Amino acid sequence: MISYRPDPSELAYTFGGREPVRSVKPGTVVELYTEDCFGGRVRDVTDLPSVVCEFPFLNPVTGPFHVEGAEPGDTLAVHFVSITPAREWAISSTFPHFGALTGTHTTATLQPPLDEVVWRYDVDVDAGVVRYHARRGDYSVELPLNPMHGTAGVAPAAFESRMTIVPDVHGGNMDTPELVAGVTAYFGVNVPGALFALGDGHCRQGDGEVCGTGIESAMNTVVILDVIKGVATPTPRFETDDALMSAGSARPLEDAYRMSQHDLVTWTTELTGLDTLDAYQLISQAGTAPVGNVCDPNYTMLAKIEKQYLRGTSAYDGIHARLREIAR
Amino acid sequence: MISYRPDPSELAYTFGGREPVRSVKPGTVVELYTEDCFGGRVRDVTDLPSVVCEFPFLNPVTGPFHVEGAEPGDTLAVHFVSITPAREWAISSTFPHFGALTGTHTTATLQPPLDEVVWRYDVDVDAGVVRYHARRGDYSVELPLNPMHGTAGVAPAAFESRMTIVPDVHGGNMDTPELVAGVTAYFGVNVPGALFALGDGHCRQGDGEVCGTGIESAMNTVVILDVIKGVATPTPRFETDDALMSAGSARPLEDAYRMSQHDLVTWTTELTGLDTLDAYQLISQAGTAPVGNVCDPNYTMLAKIEKQYLRGTSAYDGIHARLREIAR
Amino acid sequence: MISYRPDPSELAYTFGGREPVRSVKPGTVVELYTEDCFGGRVRDVTDLPSVVCEFPFLNPVTGPFHVEGAEPGDTLAVHFVSITPAREWAISSTFPHFGALTGTHTTATLQPPLDEVVWRYDVDVDAGVVRYHARRGDYSVELPLNPMHGTAGVAPAAFESRMTIVPDVHGGNMDTPELVAGVTAYFGVNVPGALFALGDGHCRQGDGEVCGTGIESAMNTVVILDVIKGVATPTPRFETDDALMSAGSARPLEDAYRMSQHDLVTWTTELTGLDTLDAYQLISQAGTAPVGNVCDPNYTMLAKIEKQYLRGTSAYDGIHARLREIAR
Amino acid sequence: MISYRPDPSELAYTFGGREPVRSVKPGTVVELYTEDCFGGRVRDVTDLPSVVCEFPFLNPVTGPFHVEGAEPGDTLAVHFVSITPAREWAISSTFPHFGALTGTHTTATLQPPLDEVVWRYDVDVDAGVVRYHARRGDYSVELPLNPMHGTAGVAPAAFESRMTIVPDVHGGNMDTPELVAGVTAYFGVNVPGALFALGDGHCRQGDGEVCGTGIESAMNTVVILDVIKGVATPTPRFETDDALMSAGSARPLEDAYRMSQHDLVTWTTELTGLDTLDAYQLISQAGTAPVGNVCDPNYTMLAKIEKQYLRGTSAYDGIHARLREIAR
Repeated sequence: MISYRPDPSELAYTFGGREPVRSVKPGTVVELYTEDCFGGRVRDVTDLPSVVCEFPFLNPVTGPFHVEGAEPGDTLAVHFVSITPAREWAISSTFPHFGALTGTHTTATLQPPLDEVVWRYDVDVDAGVVRYHARRGDYSVELPLNPMHGTAGVAPAAFESRMTIVPDVHGGNMDTPELVAGVTAYFGVNVPGALFALGDGHCRQGDGEVCGTGIESAMNTVVILDVIKGVATPTPRFETDDALMSAGSARPLEDAYRMSQHDLVTWTTELTGLDTLDAYQLISQAGTAPVGNVCDPNYTMLAKIEKQYLRGTSAYDGIHARLREIAR
Repeated sequence: MISYRPDPSELAYTFGGREPVRSVKPGTVVELYTEDCFGGRVRDVTDLPSVVCEFPFLNPVTGPFHVEGAEPGDTLAVHFVSITPAREWAISSTFPHFGALTGTHTTATLQPPLDEVVWRYDVDVDAGVVRYHARRGDYSVELPLNPMHGTAGVAPAAFESRMTIVPDVHGGNMDTPELVAGVTAYFGVNVPGALFALGDGHCRQGDGEVCGTGIESAMNTVVILDVIKGVATPTPRFETDDALMSAGSARPLEDAYRMSQHDLVTWTTELTGLDTLDAYQLISQAGTAPVGNVCDPNYTMLAKIEKQYLRGTSAYDGIHARLREIAR
Repeated sequence: MISYRPDPSELAYTFGGREPVRSVKPGTVVELYTEDCFGGRVRDVTDLPSVVCEFPFLNPVTGPFHVEGAEPGDTLAVHFVSITPAREWAISSTFPHFGALTGTHTTATLQPPLDEVVWRYDVDVDAGVVRYHARRGDYSVELPLNPMHGTAGVAPAAFESRMTIVPDVHGGNMDTPELVAGVTAYFGVNVPGALFALGDGHCRQGDGEVCGTGIESAMNTVVILDVIKGVATPTPRFETDDALMSAGSARPLEDAYRMSQHDLVTWTTELTGLDTLDAYQLISQAGTAPVGNVCDPNYTMLAKIEKQYLRGTSAYDGIHARLREIAR
Repeated sequence: MISYRPDPSELAYTFGGREPVRSVKPGTVVELYTEDCFGGRVRDVTDLPSVVCEFPFLNPVTGPFHVEGAEPGDTLAVHFVSITPAREWAISSTFPHFGALTGTHTTATLQPPLDEVVWRYDVDVDAGVVRYHARRGDYSVELPLNPMHGTAGVAPAAFESRMTIVPDVHGGNMDTPELVAGVTAYFGVNVPGALFALGDGHCRQGDGEVCGTGIESAMNTVVILDVIKGVATPTPRFETDDALMSAGSARPLEDAYRMSQHDLVTWTTELTGLDTLDAYQLISQAGTAPVGNVCDPNYTMLAKIEKQYLRGTSAYDGIHARLREIAR
């Protein structure tokens, strides 16, 4: 096991275009710290993100990690052992011209932005809850804690370097509440060493992250990084004990849906030997479509199928079960 | 209670533009039969929909029902008491240039259509399952029965008449797996009597109805039709014992998301007295976004919130609880 | 020739669902008057549309006209002989939550609407200009007059009735500056008599009608209505002396582009005998894509090709040239 | 004047992430050669791009050029003096799952790709024409030569490096037929030296580049590179003797429209002193919306206004006129 807590100067703001902070062997357990999407600068409701944060130093990630032996055409497997909020508070906010229910940079309107408002949540890890407090009025309610990472991925292909806020086939800011402890995430490797990085912890978020942010928190997270040699992965995939998922990130949102469903149909075909249209039919009736984000530069949706409907198939030669065992 | 089983000649193919088949008093329990989306003409895997069905005689609905006293500006409440498959088999199929993973009439491509293939499912109501059989190979699996209606709604506003396949603010072909027994659906009334109609039963469907059809079945369904006077409803809403939902139907899919989330934020504001941005924040972290269809002329998404996060609020003056009690 | 000037009570607000106001023989020259999209109620900058107009009595059309002998599967040819502004002023305005640079009913945002502002233009038919006056400051400029109709079409298929503001395959509110005098428009006939109606004159408009309205004016318009028997037209098409055009109306905007380009490729294939991919290539390099509206319930784009690149082909057996001759 | 003809090994495949090939003073006339989007490897109709080209070595650009003194917050002005096809032939082709009338990587469908077909055009610079030859049948037609560059831009902000095929606010693969000789293009500077690069010459293209490629040609091009200090440019803009244009690149296509129209409205406000809504109105009636590409990772549209409607305003302090004079 290695442990890594980045100095603020070590934080990364892109996938690609960065030297690795560490090099690890496949199978290494990595304990790391991730800063929140505000770089920890928003600590109270009076800290407006547009004032205390500076573009492009937003949504920092920890890494990248070079995984020895990972080559283009391989798959990086990242098993999430645990994700634990690092503070007793967490932040959400609106941000001018960002979010789903406002005009934005691309959905450009002539209307003034919504007010920039910050909410500070109480975080109680032991009780497994966060507490919401309304800003304008006396209203408070507990919500279940569901720690997750909004941003995870590898260096992109084609010599690209992408802001961490962008989700695409290399991963990135998918912002899906499915990316929790117990999941194994799979990323296609595009450059030697894969260059995995992680950030943007959320205590929880609703589907679509409609206001533009989750309940943002620094996290102490443990992952296992492993490599599947000679097997490519076209778009990020997730596996739990019970289910398989494919992620699609694109605009408009139906294309994120199409990409994710297309990959799950194709993957199902490979795993079961079913004909493509037979797999299309099975996913059509048995699949679900968890929504990731509907606010980032690309939107993200997942396509998900319970393994029980795939008759005991084993993805990636059973690596999830093996990593799960190590995690225990 | 009234009972109504339409003669095939009585089936409707639009919302609006039709005389009512029955007039009922508010609070009436209605037992009715709905034909499947193929008009019952596809009975085996050799019955190709494009051959045995004739445009525009697709997706028939039962109704419309005139509900006495319903006037524009009121809300029609439809409580679904039970939805029971009427046959021991059910059908799904691809259809040329229809579905999410194919070029379509609007997403027009020069590629030939996918093969038109029919799947026939076994339906076992007592066991609560349907059985999928692959068409090309030996693969069979049971899926849970989850009977629902894809199409439900009222006559549209503005003198419009819409094909039943179109979902919009009047309801229509939303194709959401949330529309099951136990739900109360709310529709804004646009014409005297509301003119409610119902059809397109599915034994179950996956999120998005990706291939274009669910597991299509005739249904025996019991609903209670009631009227909420003097309260308008801008877009279809659903209520269960535990949750509230708003539906949005539009293209692109992010607009269906925006409409549904916008209505749920607005509704939450009304129900709780929260400020709009406080409600936006609460829904952002506590809400979910169940996907309806991603294949119909408009796509449908829901925004959903557990009532427990709204501190015991009561929607529409508690009518859901009252209808639920009657249903029992 | 017949002449028809509707009483306000005769104006129509839908395509479909209306009895014809006149029945005419194929080849009839029809002189008619169309009211502006505000029903003539906005006459000065102090008349706010949201105050003086009443939903759904917006965007009135003149008609429908029953054309004798037109049957489903035929094509209605409408040659525009002349379009002349009927008043010495014309109106444009913003309208709350309508237009391309604002949140709307479907692109739902939580921002307040833009201000509702009315502009009154001077119209000088003899000089061929309109004059713009800024509302907030001293700025005035002449623009060329280019009289056109935003709304033209026939009754839809499938028992539908659609608000006049909606463009679709039946025509409707396409809002394209290509629909000017000298053009022959072709519409597929869906019901006996076709039921053609016309309205929404603009003195001119920019591409996309970005603020939501053109320079709206009542018009005195002369058309020739004719029928092409036994030839179907899948989406509205236009012909000038020099060019052929296909219209596509859909959301998102790329689907309006796809529909229009797809139809022009297909039509080119039929007219020239070219292979589909050869026609695709030719349109790719020689075609243009005039933008209609980017603000209505469906967006509209055209695909356009100069006839000179089609080697003297004649569409619809040369009817445009014949009607053009009659018009002279 | 400097002259630069890159060795194939010097070609770039990204904007950003590259060392400059030359450093030039502001005002320098640069004569350069650009290779076609296939890297010159497709020379005949039997050279299939998917066979002879290798991802990611597609759409090479010449550069980047470091322009001395250009700093973030400045604007790079690039005046196109001349663009001349470098060969007597040029190539267009379909490419599997690329183009507007086919399923793609993001608009993912289960249909097989369209056939991959190559067309070779004759180029006659003196006569000012290209000649199309159908591949399947005897059909040939001349089209006007209109040499343009599909790809032009600077290094992106935020440490990003983007494939040359992507258009965005840094420029890139906008594929607009407006980018011809006589135009001055303006790009916001994101990194010291701006790092301008240029490629993807087309002998001509239709609006939207519907099949995915223009008539692709190597080019001999002369540009003048200059810097406007202390003036930022939010999205690429173009100026001709008669018109101003703003470019927007996004998905869905309406967002490209919104971005471009929004920038033109804002720019008009700055240039004329008009109120924002008055500028919105003027652009709504007087503006056009030339379509760039509807096939690349982002779609591109322009918003265009004739200078005559802006009462003699001068953009960027008249630099276009000065560079135009130098070019003569």
